[in-house]
Amino acid sequence: MAKTDKANRLKPQLPRGFVDREAPDLRATAVMLERIAQVYELYGFEPVETPAFEFTEALGKFLPDQDRPNAGVFSLQDDDEAWISLRYDLTAPLARFVAQNYDRLPKPYRSFRSGYVFRNEKPGPGRFRQFMQFDADTVGAASVGADAEICMMTADTLERLGIARGDYVVRINNRKVLDGVLARIGLDGEEHEATRLTVLRAIDKLDRLGIDGVEALLGKGRLDESGDYTKGAGLEAEAISRVLAFVSAGQGSQAETLDRLGELVAGIEAGEQGVAELREMLSLFEAAGYGPDRVLIDPSVVRGLEYYTGPVFEAELTFETEDEDGQVARFGSVAGGGRYDGLVGRFRAENVPATGISIGVSRLMAALDALGKLDSAEAAGPVVVLVMDRERIGAYQAMVADLRKAGIRSEMYIGSSGMKAQMKYADRRNAPCVIIQGSDELEAGEVQIKDLIEGKRLSEEIDDNRTWRESRPAQIQIPTGDLVGAVRDILAAHAADAEAERGR
Amino acid sequence: MAKTDKANRLKPQLPRGFVDREAPDLRATAVMLERIAQVYELYGFEPVETPAFEFTEALGKFLPDQDRPNAGVFSLQDDDEAWISLRYDLTAPLARFVAQNYDRLPKPYRSFRSGYVFRNEKPGPGRFRQFMQFDADTVGAASVGADAEICMMTADTLERLGIARGDYVVRINNRKVLDGVLARIGLDGEEHEATRLTVLRAIDKLDRLGIDGVEALLGKGRLDESGDYTKGAGLEAEAISRVLAFVSAGQGSQAETLDRLGELVAGIEAGEQGVAELREMLSLFEAAGYGPDRVLIDPSVVRGLEYYTGPVFEAELTFETEDEDGQVARFGSVAGGGRYDGLVGRFRAENVPATGISIGVSRLMAALDALGKLDSAEAAGPVVVLVMDRERIGAYQAMVADLRKAGIRSEMYIGSSGMKAQMKYADRRNAPCVIIQGSDELEAGEVQIKDLIEGKRLSEEIDDNRTWRESRPAQIQIPTGDLVGAVRDILAAHAADAEAERGR
Repeated sequence: MAKTDKANRLKPQLPRGFVDREAPDLRATAVMLERIAQVYELYGFEPVETPAFEFTEALGKFLPDQDRPNAGVFSLQDDDEAWISLRYDLTAPLARFVAQNYDRLPKPYRSFRSGYVFRNEKPGPGRFRQFMQFDADTVGAASVGADAEICMMTADTLERLGIARGDYVVRINNRKVLDGVLARIGLDGEEHEATRLTVLRAIDKLDRLGIDGVEALLGKGRLDESGDYTKGAGLEAEAISRVLAFVSAGQGSQAETLDRLGELVAGIEAGEQGVAELREMLSLFEAAGYGPDRVLIDPSVVRGLEYYTGPVFEAELTFETEDEDGQVARFGSVAGGGRYDGLVGRFRAENVPATGISIGVSRLMAALDALGKLDSAEAAGPVVVLVMDRERIGAYQAMVADLRKAGIRSEMYIGSSGMKAQMKYADRRNAPCVIIQGSDELEAGEVQIKDLIEGKRLSEEIDDNRTWRESRPAQIQIPTGDLVGAVRDILAAHAADAEAERGR
Repeated sequence: MAKTDKANRLKPQLPRGFVDREAPDLRATAVMLERIAQVYELYGFEPVETPAFEFTEALGKFLPDQDRPNAGVFSLQDDDEAWISLRYDLTAPLARFVAQNYDRLPKPYRSFRSGYVFRNEKPGPGRFRQFMQFDADTVGAASVGADAEICMMTADTLERLGIARGDYVVRINNRKVLDGVLARIGLDGEEHEATRLTVLRAIDKLDRLGIDGVEALLGKGRLDESGDYTKGAGLEAEAISRVLAFVSAGQGSQAETLDRLGELVAGIEAGEQGVAELREMLSLFEAAGYGPDRVLIDPSVVRGLEYYTGPVFEAELTFETEDEDGQVARFGSVAGGGRYDGLVGRFRAENVPATGISIGVSRLMAALDALGKLDSAEAAGPVVVLVMDRERIGAYQAMVADLRKAGIRSEMYIGSSGMKAQMKYADRRNAPCVIIQGSDELEAGEVQIKDLIEGKRLSEEIDDNRTWRESRPAQIQIPTGDLVGAVRDILAAHAADAEAERGR
C-alpha cells in the first residue's frame, strides 16, 4: 500500500464516550469478574448471556432519567424495516430471554451475566457510552426470600473483592411501603402517576440535597446553585411531613424502623404488605447471621426506575477517600436493584415475579483501586533475547523457543534497531532480564544474562549514597546449554525478593 | 404493573443472526479464551481492548467478499452528523489504536484481544451477525521474524487447546510471490487491480472447487451446480498454467517448494523478495524445532483480503469428522492472518509494518467439541435445601448460609411449589443432594440428606435387573449440627466415583 499523503490521512480517534482499555485495566477486570462469578456460582446462579442487539420494542422505555421515549438508545432500522437497538442494560434482555425460554428453564431461575451496555447520551467525566454491568437475577420466585438472598450475596461479593465489613452496607427498602405512604396522602390512582414519580425522584436526591432540598422538591420547588429552578411535587405541608417521616424512619434498631414504618402505613393494604415483606427479609438476614452492619433496612432508598414493584436495594461504599483536590468523598452506590414483577409479563399472559441486582463494574473498580484492593494477575514482563547479529536470528529464536517451552514468558527482539534501543525496549517491557550473545560470547559457547531488576536496584543504591550491600551479580555469563536453568534461578530470586518485600 | 392483555403483548424474540448463550457454552468459552491468552502471554503479547464503535471512515473498506462500500457494517449517524460503525473485525480498530498511541507504545508492539464483532449480513446456518474473534498482532516489526513467531504461536495455541500434532497445520504463503507471478504474466500495475483480485479469489476457492474449478475461474468462467455463472479472470492459457503451477508448487520438501517458487518468479524483484522471506521464515521454524507437520509452506494459501502485503497464513484442522448425515468432512480453516503493512499508515505520515492472526472462536469451539476436547470448568449443580414448612424458612436459610460459608454451592428452594415440584427442580438443577427437614426430623433435631446421584444409580441398577451391589445408602439422617460435614463427605464420594469412572 502506498504512503498516505497528508490531505488523505485519517485522524486516529474514537467517537466521544468510547475508550480503549489496556493491560493493567483488563487484567484487574478479569480478576474482579472471576471473583464475582465465584460468589454467584456458590449461590447456585448460572451464567447466561444475551447478544448486544434486541428489538427496540423489547427493550421498553425504562431508562433512568429519560423522559423522551427511546432517547439514550443506539437504534437502527434492520433491512426488514424493524427497529433494533443496542441493549442499554442487562435486565430488559434477560426478561426477553426468560419469556422466550420459559417452559424449559428451571423455575425459580437464578442467573448471572456481565457485559457491555450502550447509552447514546452525552458523555462526561466518568460517563461513557459503552460500559460494563454485572447482573444477577432470580426469575419465578414471588417470595422475598429471593430478594433477601440477592442482598446477602451482594454483601458476600463485596467482601470477596476485599472490601472490609463496615466499609460497605446494602441498604434495603420496599416500594410498597412508599406506595402506602403515598396512598395515605391521596396520591394513589393512575391520575397521580406523574406526581408519584416526582416524589420518587425528590427522595432519590436526599443524598445530594439533604432533607431541606427534598422538602423543597416535595413542595413548590427548588432553585439550585446554578440558578436553575426545579418545579416541585406541590404537596401540602401535612403530606410533605408524612413523606419526610417515611424517609427518615430509619433510626434505632431495625425492629424500631419497621414499627415506625408500620405506623405510617397502618390501614393501607399495600403499605402493610411492604412492611411485612421487610420484616420477613429481616428475619432471613438474622437467621443467616447477616446483621445491620451488612444489610440494613433504610427507608431513604427508593431507586429512580419506575418498574420496581417491591423490595429495592442499593450497595453503598461507606468509607471515605480524598480526591485529587484533597476533598473527602464517599464512593456511594456501586450496585442497585430490586423486584420488577411486571417486566417478564410484558411478553406473557401471566405475570412472572422477578428480582435482581446490577453492579456498575467500572465504578466498583475505581473504588477497589482507591482501597488498594485492585488485584491484577499482573503478568511479569517477558525475558528479552537481544538480536546482536541479524545473521544469527535462528540461534536467538532457538533460545526463545527453549525458554517458552519451559513456560518462561519470553521474546526475541524482532524490531530493526540497535543494541541501545533494544535495551530501552526491554526496559519499557519490564523485562526481568535480557539474554545477550555477541560474537565474543558465541566463540566461548556462552551467553550473557543481564538481570535488569537487580541492576536497577544496585544503581539506585549507588544513587542513594547507601553502602553497597552483599548482592547477587547483576550480570552473569554461562554456557549456552544452561540458559533455561539460569533464567529460572533469576526469576525465582526476584519472586523471593518480592515476597520478602511484601512481608516487611 | 398490570397484566398485559393479549393484543398488547410483545413477542419474545431476537433479531435474525443473534443468539443467546447458556452456561455450558459460556463456561467452555471461558476455559478456551483463558488458554489462548496463556499462550499469547507466554510469547510476550499484552492484552488490549478497543470499544465496539469506531468512526466509519477509520474502519476502511476491507470486509471480505463485499464489493459495495460499507455494505455489511452496522452504521449510524452520531448527533454531530459523523457516521460511526460497530467494528466488523479486530484488525482495523487495532490499527487505529496503535496510530493514536504510537509514541508511547513499546515498539515492536505485541498485543492480543478477544471480543465480539458485528456483520450486517444475511445470517445463515453457522453465520451470525455477532460473533467472537481472538486476535494477536505485532506492530512495528518489518522482519518476517514477527510473522514466523505468530505462526509458531498459533501452532502452540492449537496444541494447548488439545488438538494433537498431526490434526492441524499452519499453512504459510507470501503475497509477494503471487504478485511476482502476476507481474510475470503482465498483471502488474494499477490498471489490472480488478483482475488481480479476481485471480486471488479464484485461487482462494481451490479447497472447494478443486484445480479444474480454479482453472475455469482463471479463464472464461464457471457454471456452478445451481446454474449460476461466475465470470472468470479471462487469462490466456499460458498465464493460467503459470498461476496453476504456482498454486500447486507445494510438493516434496519445503526446500523443493521454495526452489520451484524461485523459478516461477525469477527476475521479478517482488517475487524474489517474497521467496527470500519464506526462506527466512523456514529457517526460523527449523531453528525453533517446528517441522512441516506444524508449520508448512503452501502456495495455495492466498487469503481473500486485499490489504495483505507479505506473508499470509491459515491454521487448518486436518482431521476428519462425520457430520449428522454421516458425511465425512474436514473442519478446515479456524484462524487466518498475514502482514498488513499499509493499515496503520492510513493514519500516519510513515508506513508502519504490522502482522497478525485472527481466530474464529465459535468455529474452533465447534471443532474442539467434535474432538471431545471442549473442557468446561463445569460447575456441579447446587445442593438444594427443600422448604418443607414455609413458617420455618429462617432455619432453612441458616442451613444454606452454613453450607455456603463452607464453600459448598447451595440454594434454599425459593419458589412456591410443593415437595414433588421441589424434588423435580433439584433434579433439573443437577443437585448432588437435597436437604430435608420436616416436622419429624425437626423433632429429633436431625436433617435428612437424599443423595440424588447415588439414588439415580441404584434405581438404574434395579432397572437393568442387575444384582444389587454393595453401596452407600442414598439417604441418611443425621444431627442438624453435622450437616456441613455430611454434605462434604457425599460430595467427596461423588468426586472419587467420577475420578474412578475417568480412570476406567
